[in-house]
Amino acid sequence: MGYGLLKGKKGIIFGALDHKSIAWKVAERCVEEGAQIVLTNAPVAMRLGEINELAEKLKCEIIPADATSIEDLELLISKSQEILGGKLDFILHSIGMSINVRKKKDYTDLNYEWMKTTFDVSSISFHKVMQTAFKQDALNDWGSVVALTYIAAQRTFPDYSEMAESKALLESFARSFGYHYAKKAHVRVNTVSQSPTVTTAGSGVKGFGDFFGYANKMSPLGNASADACADYCVTLFSDLTRYVTMQNLFHDGGFSSMGMAPEILED
Amino acid sequence: MGYGLLKGKKGIIFGALDHKSIAWKVAERCVEEGAQIVLTNAPVAMRLGEINELAEKLKCEIIPADATSIEDLELLISKSQEILGGKLDFILHSIGMSINVRKKKDYTDLNYEWMKTTFDVSSISFHKVMQTAFKQDALNDWGSVVALTYIAAQRTFPDYSEMAESKALLESFARSFGYHYAKKAHVRVNTVSQSPTVTTAGSGVKGFGDFFGYANKMSPLGNASADACADYCVTLFSDLTRYVTMQNLFHDGGFSSMGMAPEILED
Amino acid sequence: MGYGLLKGKKGIIFGALDHKSIAWKVAERCVEEGAQIVLTNAPVAMRLGEINELAEKLKCEIIPADATSIEDLELLISKSQEILGGKLDFILHSIGMSINVRKKKDYTDLNYEWMKTTFDVSSISFHKVMQTAFKQDALNDWGSVVALTYIAAQRTFPDYSEMAESKALLESFARSFGYHYAKKAHVRVNTVSQSPTVTTAGSGVKGFGDFFGYANKMSPLGNASADACADYCVTLFSDLTRYVTMQNLFHDGGFSSMGMAPEILED
Amino acid sequence: MGYGLLKGKKGIIFGALDHKSIAWKVAERCVEEGAQIVLTNAPVAMRLGEINELAEKLKCEIIPADATSIEDLELLISKSQEILGGKLDFILHSIGMSINVRKKKDYTDLNYEWMKTTFDVSSISFHKVMQTAFKQDALNDWGSVVALTYIAAQRTFPDYSEMAESKALLESFARSFGYHYAKKAHVRVNTVSQSPTVTTAGSGVKGFGDFFGYANKMSPLGNASADACADYCVTLFSDLTRYVTMQNLFHDGGFSSMGMAPEILED
Repeated sequence: MGYGLLKGKKGIIFGALDHKSIAWKVAERCVEEGAQIVLTNAPVAMRLGEINELAEKLKCEIIPADATSIEDLELLISKSQEILGGKLDFILHSIGMSINVRKKKDYTDLNYEWMKTTFDVSSISFHKVMQTAFKQDALNDWGSVVALTYIAAQRTFPDYSEMAESKALLESFARSFGYHYAKKAHVRVNTVSQSPTVTTAGSGVKGFGDFFGYANKMSPLGNASADACADYCVTLFSDLTRYVTMQNLFHDGGFSSMGMAPEILED
Repeated sequence: MGYGLLKGKKGIIFGALDHKSIAWKVAERCVEEGAQIVLTNAPVAMRLGEINELAEKLKCEIIPADATSIEDLELLISKSQEILGGKLDFILHSIGMSINVRKKKDYTDLNYEWMKTTFDVSSISFHKVMQTAFKQDALNDWGSVVALTYIAAQRTFPDYSEMAESKALLESFARSFGYHYAKKAHVRVNTVSQSPTVTTAGSGVKGFGDFFGYANKMSPLGNASADACADYCVTLFSDLTRYVTMQNLFHDGGFSSMGMAPEILED
Repeated sequence: MGYGLLKGKKGIIFGALDHKSIAWKVAERCVEEGAQIVLTNAPVAMRLGEINELAEKLKCEIIPADATSIEDLELLISKSQEILGGKLDFILHSIGMSINVRKKKDYTDLNYEWMKTTFDVSSISFHKVMQTAFKQDALNDWGSVVALTYIAAQRTFPDYSEMAESKALLESFARSFGYHYAKKAHVRVNTVSQSPTVTTAGSGVKGFGDFFGYANKMSPLGNASADACADYCVTLFSDLTRYVTMQNLFHDGGFSSMGMAPEILED
Repeated sequence: MGYGLLKGKKGIIFGALDHKSIAWKVAERCVEEGAQIVLTNAPVAMRLGEINELAEKLKCEIIPADATSIEDLELLISKSQEILGGKLDFILHSIGMSINVRKKKDYTDLNYEWMKTTFDVSSISFHKVMQTAFKQDALNDWGSVVALTYIAAQRTFPDYSEMAESKALLESFARSFGYHYAKKAHVRVNTVSQSPTVTTAGSGVKGFGDFFGYANKMSPLGNASADACADYCVTLFSDLTRYVTMQNLFHDGGFSSMGMAPEILED
């Protein structure tokens, strides 16, 4: 039971793969706060099937869509409005994937075709989602768009490889599109820079465990969980944060503001 | 009528001078969201009297305190806990004053005694409030402390003069103390960097009108109002933002992320 | 006649199109400071012919190369070492191009094929240059790599369109590769964020004139010229800046640190 | 023997305590590059005597001055111009001191009188130096002012305590005064954010050794030495960096751009 912060609001949630996904938690929390939502994920990802569980639980529909395909996005956004019975109020973009990382290619020996796929899936998809919504005039006045990102966009974490660039790109799209969407319909666009999170996707990064532990010690409050991130996203979709836009917001237990934690040295 | 976001929470609000004050709006919204509060302001400021109106309306007590006096702060914080019947959950610091600005001294001809008073009142008071609360163990686990600031801490607005430095100092105190308070009791400390706001204090800055208009055009969503700022502070005092700490959060309609707005050139 | 800051150093300069190009000025100043260089540009750009003038004047060779082609880059970098008689000490990347900007597409109606070309030419080429040099072990210990960028990577200038993203990407590559190249050979990698400059490329951006004038007023020292930028690049290629790496360095007359210049309001 | 980068330039160097001081190295390098300088330090610091050695070696004069005293600064700046035979071209501010740190007071139990002294000595002195020079019109057109700072101004290093705030204050003064001095005489003002350095002052910070080692591992190029810092300051005083102003420049081997170094985890 929630506060009713999103009562009457309608939204689309990208990227709920399984119950560990941040998007999964966001979907749950949005519904708990009174929103109606549509879930979407890549057809490939959906074959794994867990998302059906979530849809049943939340009594919402799933529309498969390849976020790199304008056609798929057009259909997704128009159908979602039909299903939900009106324009949208919020969108969560939680998509990221790198073949170079998966294949453990060194950063100094990247495959450029794979890199393009990384950017297409992880970053350009965000522009495509917004451009499609913009053209369909699919978002209500004072709507809110959030994408999940990581501090590798600002600082180097060698094992994160080209995902650093894909997040830098993503955050830049948020700022740039934020201007245009504010002017059109007071829609705000932000990115949430989340602590490393134990998700199926996150854990794929090389050395994730050490990474997670280091961040946990470096963060005065510890790493933020997926649940906490969902709470935070709810505030950003609510009417209480209407003037926050074009920002990259750290939800990381303080990690981003630490230079050195004595806890690291104690070991 | 609110969402109940602060139900059962207790807090102290510094700096409600009159109905235009951001702190005034925050006080109103906190109570609306279910919080119990104590209001405080400098004895001098209180002589103006409007704050009594607010206290009556919100059915809360006022404890005068000079925020530069440790004695006053000790009394304020211990009495507040007595009145509210337990430890505190949140504190708002909304205090700022510069004699050099008031007396229209050029930035290249500042009076250093006045400068020290500016820093003492506008910035060091924030450390004093936190240090006093810390020593009294006055904040509940996962409490939240917010101070209001301005983007002059990052970029130069010549007419803002030494207030730029006082805000840089304030934001640094937030980061530094945020570490220690997170470790002690998971308390988070943040600053909200608000649009120029038509308050009695803000309007004192030379050329405020032009300033306000420029920022309004430069911000894709327009300047954020005091009311909107109060909404935002409510989210930061709520349990939905527990892992946001040591951050400077722009609540400015997008101003901070703009390089140049075509609207400025159109004139 | 210079100071001899680059005496004995060897480098490659990308992107000297004509005498207004920043790369042109950098080439001249590097030679003046004692360096031996190779000039390179895209075969298309070279057909315009002015670069031959420069090569004659500087008594250096030109090697045409498409910076998106690994083959071309491999040849360029190996040949350059042959011609110059040893490993390289510095590289300047000054390449940028956007078809969406040229064709005046709205930012909310971008062509994604063109976008990919923009990123490939303007940003990924930088990674390709470094990866190729890295694999050939072509840079001497304490070498220096610089790419030119623009503040649109941090803040929104709506007319700059997707070039904002291409610069965000470029700067991220600098940080990421900077780590690896430091570890391999103490090579430093930085980006210089230059004032808007009257070049043949820069002037192509919509509303460039207004843009330039605004930046000039907003910058306390005025816009930095291409000549001044060349001087600055010389310091970054010299041995006096060996510990500066993974930085984005503003060379902009103070623009990036201004919030509002009274000069703007005076009009 | 140098490059002649500062030939004919005149400057004042604050803060050369002993041969480990960064200011000491800067003084040596400035003279080597052709500058004439005046050395200054607090009367207390000078009693230790090593500075006389330096003055002899560099054949320059020492003028004792308490950097918190306007009178002393007025005398220093007017006398320096007499001695050097004309207006000044550069100033180095390398002053920092915290009694709270020295006395090992916890950050949550600071003595506020000491804090004020810290800010007065470490930060406000910088404004005083510039204001005094400004009033005397003591700096030549395109002069350059540099102050040394540390990344604790942006991120929390708990043991650095209130020095974090004093550096935040210092950097803000640089931005603010940079505007005014640019307008008056094209003078640029910057801060150099240096790696932890083994100086007599730096080593006083609690846990300095661990601190130094951590930063060294975290920095892809290792910590920058005082000698390297002096080289960098020379470039900032030279005519090759005329359009760099109001910047905080990291001279830190890449530390500031690292999120996590694998080298840290290897232990």
